Amino acid sequence: MKVYDRSAVVAALNVEKAIDLIEEGFAAYSSGRATVPPVGHLGLVEPPGECHIKYGHIHNDDFFAVKIATGFYENATLDLPNGSGLTIVFSARTGFPQAVLDDGGHLTDVRTAIAGCLSARYLAPSSIHRIGIVGAGVQAGLQLDYLQYATDCKDVTIWARRVDQATELAKQMQANGLRIEVVESLEKLCLACNLIVTATPSTKPLIRAEWIKSGTHITAVGSDGGGKQEIDSALFRKADHCIADSISQCVSHGESHYAIRDGYIKESNLKELGNIISGAQDGRRNDREITVADLTGVAVQDIQIAKSVLLSIESA
Amino acid sequence: MKVYDRSAVVAALNVEKAIDLIEEGFAAYSSGRATVPPVGHLGLVEPPGECHIKYGHIHNDDFFAVKIATGFYENATLDLPNGSGLTIVFSARTGFPQAVLDDGGHLTDVRTAIAGCLSARYLAPSSIHRIGIVGAGVQAGLQLDYLQYATDCKDVTIWARRVDQATELAKQMQANGLRIEVVESLEKLCLACNLIVTATPSTKPLIRAEWIKSGTHITAVGSDGGGKQEIDSALFRKADHCIADSISQCVSHGESHYAIRDGYIKESNLKELGNIISGAQDGRRNDREITVADLTGVAVQDIQIAKSVLLSIESA
Repeated sequence: MKVYDRSAVVAALNVEKAIDLIEEGFAAYSSGRATVPPVGHLGLVEPPGECHIKYGHIHNDDFFAVKIATGFYENATLDLPNGSGLTIVFSARTGFPQAVLDDGGHLTDVRTAIAGCLSARYLAPSSIHRIGIVGAGVQAGLQLDYLQYATDCKDVTIWARRVDQATELAKQMQANGLRIEVVESLEKLCLACNLIVTATPSTKPLIRAEWIKSGTHITAVGSDGGGKQEIDSALFRKADHCIADSISQCVSHGESHYAIRDGYIKESNLKELGNIISGAQDGRRNDREITVADLTGVAVQDIQIAKSVLLSIESA
Repeated sequence: MKVYDRSAVVAALNVEKAIDLIEEGFAAYSSGRATVPPVGHLGLVEPPGECHIKYGHIHNDDFFAVKIATGFYENATLDLPNGSGLTIVFSARTGFPQAVLDDGGHLTDVRTAIAGCLSARYLAPSSIHRIGIVGAGVQAGLQLDYLQYATDCKDVTIWARRVDQATELAKQMQANGLRIEVVESLEKLCLACNLIVTATPSTKPLIRAEWIKSGTHITAVGSDGGGKQEIDSALFRKADHCIADSISQCVSHGESHYAIRDGYIKESNLKELGNIISGAQDGRRNDREITVADLTGVAVQDIQIAKSVLLSIESA
């Protein structure tokens, strides 16, 4: 069994290959060509922490993978990152562990950003005039970073609960040739942007349905566990297409969960990202429609990004 | 993060310390002082294989652990062991991975044998005149090995579906000062022994209720997943005490599952091993009673044996 640390994983990551593989992974998942058991969850109380286990197998693949991610929200007081994690890759021929990617959660961050990129590729209107980023954490920055693989748009508005953090993120991202404005009104962001990504740990809806105008796509990536919500559930009624990365996960703990609970949609109204990718279901039909993507993170992303790293290492 | 391979784990394993910690772990589990989510399961089809994930946290412990075990039953054709596995130990303060015990499944084998040992310690009659071992695989041998920590009895009867394997196990175990006979009749074994351990991958009951005489304790360790059964479910009606390592797991996929399905007992008739250990529930009251222990393997065993190994390594 080989062990690769964060720097080895970062060095081996080929973004375009990872995007291609994750795209394939979503399509395999939605067409039933993958086995993905329910997410495992362990909660700790003192200090408060959580551990999620995502695992599965894309049929006929040589590997299967188990990804373990942790979030301990008092780590900041120890000057440590909240999140950590690793992925163990097993042979699907023998069950023997082949490699541990001890990446500290970096691959989870990246595969989440890639899902945002794919959502934009398949669901955003044909012309994106301004990108809105809601949140200013690591994931908000990565989402913006990876959107460059989906659009040429360089005009960005950032809103975050803490303006200083939004300004800090804007400073970092301006180095990438983006023209960024920070706003204190989230409504203003919604009116100005037709591609919006929310990446916050919010537990209450931030974006109101009435703020979203015709021709907008919104991706919500924050609802990775129960109790989180970034978007007014009424937006699911207003939207023309509601897309889940995994319907079973989203109805359990995504934004979609609230929309169904509140009677705005039924589970049968949800489409799955992998089916939009494969063409099995229709996504956006014109530039006037509103689309919402609810991303909770699916094991196929973890499997495919791990595979992309291992393939890079092996071919090096 | 440190990685220890099988030889390092084997060298660091202190059996008596591991038994003590697993004993404590069962007591913590049954008294609600541990969080143990449902076992994760991934099935693979071609070749047939399975992956089980057991994980949890004993409250106030510095560590939590995730144990991943695999079983690929065509590995024998490749001259490889069927089972493999590893345990990842995380800090319960930060969620950061601390160590990987890449033991190839050895700790799972040992903690299973220790649960058998503890079942015998707490449930077997005061005088054991002959031990019966049903099965001749790795786990059957380990069960016999670890029973020396529960009893001085040196007289052993072995039965296995394949007589040649039973004879081979008998040969190995005789080196340990045991007096072993191999029988071709399982009924004969049941009549001769008052401590019986079944450790087979059987999917049909091997031991009939009418073969078990007054004053016998039986431990069944084979039912680690759905579809396995070693004991006639009617034995649960005949037994004076039916003990599960985990009631929730045993009613889902242990021997107890069949006994409840067949109407011989109710879930409320089951007692839990940790409660017998702590004294919260009564076990055997005299040497005439029949007791049955249904072991499916609980994450607290995995956590505690991993902890025992790490403590040994750190104190070395």
